[in-house]
Amino acid sequence: MTETAPGKPSAEDLRDLLGLVAYTQLAVFGRLAADAAQSPSLAARQRISVLAASVLGRQAKVLDRIGTPGAAQARMAVFDGAYDDFDARTVPGGWWEGVLKGYVGHGVAEDFCRLIAQGLATEDREFVVDALALGREADESVAAIVEAAAGDAVLASRLALWGRRLVGEALNAVQALLADHPSVARLVAAGAEGGAAKAGSVAGSQAWVFAQLTAEHTRRMGRLGLAA
Amino acid sequence: MTETAPGKPSAEDLRDLLGLVAYTQLAVFGRLAADAAQSPSLAARQRISVLAASVLGRQAKVLDRIGTPGAAQARMAVFDGAYDDFDARTVPGGWWEGVLKGYVGHGVAEDFCRLIAQGLATEDREFVVDALALGREADESVAAIVEAAAGDAVLASRLALWGRRLVGEALNAVQALLADHPSVARLVAAGAEGGAAKAGSVAGSQAWVFAQLTAEHTRRMGRLGLAA
Repeated sequence: MTETAPGKPSAEDLRDLLGLVAYTQLAVFGRLAADAAQSPSLAARQRISVLAASVLGRQAKVLDRIGTPGAAQARMAVFDGAYDDFDARTVPGGWWEGVLKGYVGHGVAEDFCRLIAQGLATEDREFVVDALALGREADESVAAIVEAAAGDAVLASRLALWGRRLVGEALNAVQALLADHPSVARLVAAGAEGGAAKAGSVAGSQAWVFAQLTAEHTRRMGRLGLAA
Repeated sequence: MTETAPGKPSAEDLRDLLGLVAYTQLAVFGRLAADAAQSPSLAARQRISVLAASVLGRQAKVLDRIGTPGAAQARMAVFDGAYDDFDARTVPGGWWEGVLKGYVGHGVAEDFCRLIAQGLATEDREFVVDALALGREADESVAAIVEAAAGDAVLASRLALWGRRLVGEALNAVQALLADHPSVARLVAAGAEGGAAKAGSVAGSQAWVFAQLTAEHTRRMGRLGLAA
């Protein structure tokens, strides 16, 4: 990390962000579809499959906003593999670890995009924030995990540990994104200013992002009744 | 098998068929999403994911036609597990076996629904036939398999063998569907009459269906340049 200012984000940077959002939506689709295949009931399989398809429906709008199909594809391709390390290091050991992975992983991605979006014009900001919002699904995951953990202290403590592992790996993935993509680093710096953080340097704005993501994660685990 | 006439299909039988179609669409969604996750490129992953989501979009119309969400879910649940044996017995050994499984499995399911639909009123028939049609995807699979097999005689002969295995297991699945679901057997009998087959008995109409499915499969493998 250097202490030089990262420069203002450009329209190109915004298109990169949209590429990251679209790539993330494709990853979310894949994660939900895999969850659906493992569902304990047909009703759950149907519900999660519909949710997966709806994420891809929203992705179409993001891709459309980037430009032509070719341009959109190219912008996504920049981020190809961005979650591979995260996925390889967080293979769930069973259904509940998978549900928690979805909740934590998606939560961090959603928070990260919201923080970045602070530096954008209002209309762009709302578009980016909406693109990844999965409110209802998150609520359902919370309810299911709370119920399962409440009746099983061993599961609760295993999931608390798993949650710490997940957030650590998720923050590593964010770190790698920032290191590999100057456009994302510029957006983070602009987001830090928009978020009224004392930024002014790459290290300062990145520290602000990690502090925010960690605080959000603590709140998230608290909603589950699990220690963060 | 008995030689008694199966009786005329009812409006309830049609709702069962729609339940089977919706369940099949959910299975197709799962298969395509799993293929997407295994795709050799980001472009293929995106394309196959979009296709999977579009199948679920069409499923929404089928469910809607059955009735309330609860009624639709119940009608699907009747067929829960109908493809489990098929899937357990046809685990693909690699990418190309997976592509061929999709092509053959989906082809048989689509043909079966088309044959059954022969006995329905025009509007219902067209609705059922459209619900499972995946023309473009089938064309793309054909082109990809033809290209891969043309350059690799060992792969071509392995896939020819695999195709025979797949169709055998698919016909077993159809047989089990007919045995377990009298409504489907009535629809097949009506379809056999609609298809101008010499039916008049359960065994006659079922023999007609198997002959048609086998003939279609032979044509399908021929399009791939593989021996059926």
